[in-house]
Parts: sequence; structure tokens; C-alpha cells
Amino acid sequence: MNLLDATLREIQPLDMSLVVRVQRRLNSLTKPHGSLGRLEVLALRCASISGSERPRVDNKVLFVCCGDHGVCTEGVSAYPREVTAQMVYNFLRGGAAISVLARQFGINVQVVDLGVDHEFAIDLPGLVSRKVARGTANFVRAAAMSSSQAVQAIEVGIAVASDAIREGAQLIGVGEMGIGNTTSATAMLSVLSGIDPETLTGQGTGIDAKGRKRKVAVIKRALAYHKLSSSDPLRVLTAVGGYEIAGIVGMCLAGAALQVPVVIDGFIATAAAWVACALHPAVKDRLIFAHLSAEQGHHHVLAALEVEPLLNLYMRLGEGTGAALGMSLVDSAVRILNEMATFDEAGVAKGECGK
Amino acid sequence: MNLLDATLREIQPLDMSLVVRVQRRLNSLTKPHGSLGRLEVLALRCASISGSERPRVDNKVLFVCCGDHGVCTEGVSAYPREVTAQMVYNFLRGGAAISVLARQFGINVQVVDLGVDHEFAIDLPGLVSRKVARGTANFVRAAAMSSSQAVQAIEVGIAVASDAIREGAQLIGVGEMGIGNTTSATAMLSVLSGIDPETLTGQGTGIDAKGRKRKVAVIKRALAYHKLSSSDPLRVLTAVGGYEIAGIVGMCLAGAALQVPVVIDGFIATAAAWVACALHPAVKDRLIFAHLSAEQGHHHVLAALEVEPLLNLYMRLGEGTGAALGMSLVDSAVRILNEMATFDEAGVAKGECGK
Repeated sequence: MNLLDATLREIQPLDMSLVVRVQRRLNSLTKPHGSLGRLEVLALRCASISGSERPRVDNKVLFVCCGDHGVCTEGVSAYPREVTAQMVYNFLRGGAAISVLARQFGINVQVVDLGVDHEFAIDLPGLVSRKVARGTANFVRAAAMSSSQAVQAIEVGIAVASDAIREGAQLIGVGEMGIGNTTSATAMLSVLSGIDPETLTGQGTGIDAKGRKRKVAVIKRALAYHKLSSSDPLRVLTAVGGYEIAGIVGMCLAGAALQVPVVIDGFIATAAAWVACALHPAVKDRLIFAHLSAEQGHHHVLAALEVEPLLNLYMRLGEGTGAALGMSLVDSAVRILNEMATFDEAGVAKGECGK
Repeated sequence: MNLLDATLREIQPLDMSLVVRVQRRLNSLTKPHGSLGRLEVLALRCASISGSERPRVDNKVLFVCCGDHGVCTEGVSAYPREVTAQMVYNFLRGGAAISVLARQFGINVQVVDLGVDHEFAIDLPGLVSRKVARGTANFVRAAAMSSSQAVQAIEVGIAVASDAIREGAQLIGVGEMGIGNTTSATAMLSVLSGIDPETLTGQGTGIDAKGRKRKVAVIKRALAYHKLSSSDPLRVLTAVGGYEIAGIVGMCLAGAALQVPVVIDGFIATAAAWVACALHPAVKDRLIFAHLSAEQGHHHVLAALEVEPLLNLYMRLGEGTGAALGMSLVDSAVRILNEMATFDEAGVAKGECGK
């Protein structure tokens, strides 16, 4: 059995037996019941996911999965393809937005090369070199990757995330870098959600109205060519996905199998999360959707997936920037559960609602 | 001239001359233009407020202003009045929700007693003892405080915040504790916004439907008794406000005068912020509204004030818990401005939108 199948087999439904006890503790803390809103819901979720009444998320790891896209040759991005590799160097030097936010929140960043079209030096400090290929094929006229490459990239994600968890990671975030990958994610999500490309296609990194029109046409041509069905999510990923997206699929599965919450970044990470959810019904409850992206299609997709993001800050950068902010909120939630005094400990009178 | 008038005289309109230069820097950073959404807007705001192209918010102070309310005798809260003082001890011991979040985000908490109905030991470590009176009068049948007491409480807020700023505070947050104070804030905001009490009154710490009905009736009786007008915000504060609310008014004014951004917590802090905005037209641009409270009236009030909160996490605790999360986002914004690499520094190619 391959790693993907073995991982899928490990994933269990959430253990709801803890919920009553954790809710009782939340209600015993010095605040009106439920008055911390979604922080309390998050604390409950983390307890259920980790199978622990007192989950910890001190050790936080965020993966920036990187890969290039053959579809770039269709002129779907405002940036040249070389920017993917250039941004990898920027991540490693700590100058990118995700580097800044990760420093603020004490998050360890791992930059994972799954498919960048650039030869990085061997043992470049900080880079996890797990390249499957130098970019996908242009999916307008061919599958983006072979099915064995897709499985390989998913398994890289599983292996890298599993290693981090074995080394102590208690909370995982997933983000990405890949010029052209909103086109790939939009094509995937259009099939998976059944929402038409015209509705889902946004401006990505910042193309103009004409560029967006071209992007819609490219996606429509690709979908006409591949004839995909939402009932075969692996084929969707293989046909129009990307290596970095496949890597994130694997990380979602590894987190679900190993009982570690996975915080999902924006639009592109959501495409990966959808595939992971489609591969196993118990995955979705183990994912936390960090933010609503300003990318046009994201709110349609999150609504179709029936999840509510934590934040809405009109961000549309990727890299895991939204996930980093979400991880900080998860940290807040777990600290509230673990560190607040109870009414009894603090000698505070309970109200009517505390009776 | 008293401290209040002197402070109002110090407040200047925002210096917009920096905006072009700061926007140019934001556009030079390695990300598509505007792709960090509200974080970029916040960075611009902090630069304008502080009058610095490179604002800093490393030194963060959050004030929890505390006071009791005579209107509690009308049965408007789910908790007994003694809880205000009990929670002060909880803040000082670090067991409250705000204590936990402040530790997470490196925020220094100052607990300020402006009107708690309890004699705290002299020099209780961590408590800023600036009591004006032991709670307000029941405002259903009398003014909550005298006008000189209201001014005194505002000036306590000005003095305490100014001291902190002189000692290095670069970002201020304001929250509160006071059993009964949603009733006070609702009465104030009903007059100030012109929205009827029925629409604005929520469940506070968690009263039931019957309690809420009683609360609406109490507020209506008080407003019929006092005959207040939005054109006299100080009289509104005096008649139906609270000492902790008056203290926050002063802190908003001090921040505005001394060019330090002030992060506003939830519903009750918004009542104070509204008074500060009404006292000087240049205050509003210097305030940052952290979150939309789950307290029923908050979204009506923020819409009437024409401000958009950063977060919506269904929180309704007060203490400054929403402000603490908002301060962390302000910190993120300023770090992005200061720490990210530019396209030139990182050797990243600019896209069409970077031209």
C-alpha cells in the first residue's frame, strides 16, 4: 500500500467524547458563557482534533509549498514565471510578508520546493528540496502532471508534514507560491464546486480586466479539453492542478491522520483542502479556514464547502499570510482554554448564566 | 484652562502629507499592490497618526478601565455588582481573558480603578488607583455623576494615557470592566446615534429575554427623565455614563493629542469613542475599531459612526479582549511596512502592476 492510501486509512472521525468536558471547562472560566465567541469554538475544535482536553499549539510550523505552472505561457498572470524562484530566495532570506508575520507569531516556516522551474543549490539553507518536476505542463493542451507525479507530490506533502509533526509540530499552516496558480486553483475549484469559471475567476496577483477575460477563456478551454468530474478529485488535481497544490493536499491528510489541526490559507490552499476533503469525509472537521481572500471566487467556494473563515481582511497574497494570522487566533483560543482562571480559582461570583 | 480643554486644543487633523511616500514604500515591497488588504491600510493609518514614515508599535499598552454602576439595582445584569471588584483582582493575578491575550501579544496591561465600589488596598501591585467615586448613581432617577466628576474621570484617562505615552507607549488599547455598563453604554449610544433603545439593547453578559426587556424599559425611563441631546455629548456621559467610560474618553483624546493610535474594544468602549469623536472632529481618524461585538447594537452603532471593525469573531466579553487581538493586527501591519524586502532589495521582478 502506498503512503497516500496508508494515510487515508489512518484518518479517524473527530473524537466528540471530549466536547462535553472541554465545554464544561470553558464554562467554568471567568467570563460569561460563550462570550469569547469563535475563540471558544476554536478551542473546542483543537481539543477534538488533537484528542486532548488540554491541547497545546506552542510548536507551530507553516509550510510554503512552491511550484511553477505551464499555463503561465497563456499570459494568465501579471508577473513573470521567474518570480516563483525569486520569491523562494526572498522567503529564505526572511524578506517576504510571510517571513515577517511568522517572526511576529513565533511560527517556524518551511519552504518546500515541489515543482519550481529553477535549479536551487543543493542544501540551500532552509529549503526543503522535494522537487517532483520543473513546473507543470500547460494544462490547456495536456494534463498538468501524470497521475504518478500527482501522487508523488501528495506523498511529499504527507512526508514533510509528518516529519514536522514527529519533531513536535502541534499546529500546521499551509500556504503557497507559484506564479499562475490562481488559474490552476480556479480550474480545479470550478470542477469540484460546480461553480462556473466566470464566477470564480478573479484577478490573481493583479491582472487587468482584459487579462481576467483571457484567464476565464483559458480555464474554459482546459475544462472542455479534460472533461473532469468532481467525483474524481485526484484526476482534477492531475489534469489542472499544481505540484505545490498537491503538496498541500498531502499536508492536510497528514495533519488529519496525525491529529494536528491544519490552518488553510486562501484561495489556492482551499483548492488543495477541497481535494483532501473529497478524498476522506473526516478531513474537513480537522481543517481551520483562516481567512476570506479578496480573490473573487473564494467566498463562493467557502460557502459551497460550508465553512466559515476566521478573518476577512481583503488579503489576496497567498504565501500563508492569512494562515499565519489564523494560527495566531488558534493560539489565542488554546491559551484561553489552558491559562484562564476558573470562577472558583479566582473567587469570582457566577452570574445567572453561570448557575 | 483645564486638562480636558488643553488636550482638545492639542488635537490636530491627520497629517496626510506622508501618505504618498508611505504608499510608495508599500508598493515597493515584494507583493502585488494592495494584496495585504487591510493590513496595508492600517500601516498607512499608523504612519499618518504618528506622523512618521516608519511608525513603531513595539511598546503596546492596554488599559482596562473599571467602574461600578448604580443602575445595577434595577436588575439589568446577569452578574452581581461585586464581580467588578472580583475581576479587578483576577486581572491583577493574570487569570482573566485579557491577561492571557496580553501575555500572548506582549501587551502591557494597566488596570485603572476609576469608580469601583470597593476599597482596594493602598498600593495594590499593578492597580492604577484613580477612583473618582464608588460607582455611579442609579441614572434612572438622577445623573450618573456630577459634571465635575465626569470631567475628573476624563482627565484621569488623559493623565494615565499621557503618562504611558511619555514612558514609551506607541500603541494604546482601551477596554473596560463594570457590571451594568452595557446598560449605560446603550443609553449613551441611543442618544448619540439616534437609534432607539429597543434596537440597540442586547443581552450584555448574558441576561435572558425577560431581563433584556427590563433593560430596555430602564433605558427608556432614564432617557425620558434626562431629556438628552446628541449635541451635548458631555451631558450624555454625565447623565447616563460611567467612570470607566469617561476614562476611556480621556484616553482616546490623549492618544489623539499625542499622535498615538488608540485601538477601541467593543460596544462599551465604542460609547466612549463616540463621545471623544463628538468632542473633536479629528479624533475619529486616530482611532482603530478592533472588532464587531456580538452585542446586538454594535453593528448599528459602528455603521452610524461610519467605521469598519477589523475582526468579527462573535466576541462579547469586553476587558479589552477584542482590542488585544486588534493590536496584534496593527503590529502585523507596521511590521510589514518596516520589515519586508523591496523588489529591488530581493531581486524580484516587478509585474505589470509593479510598473
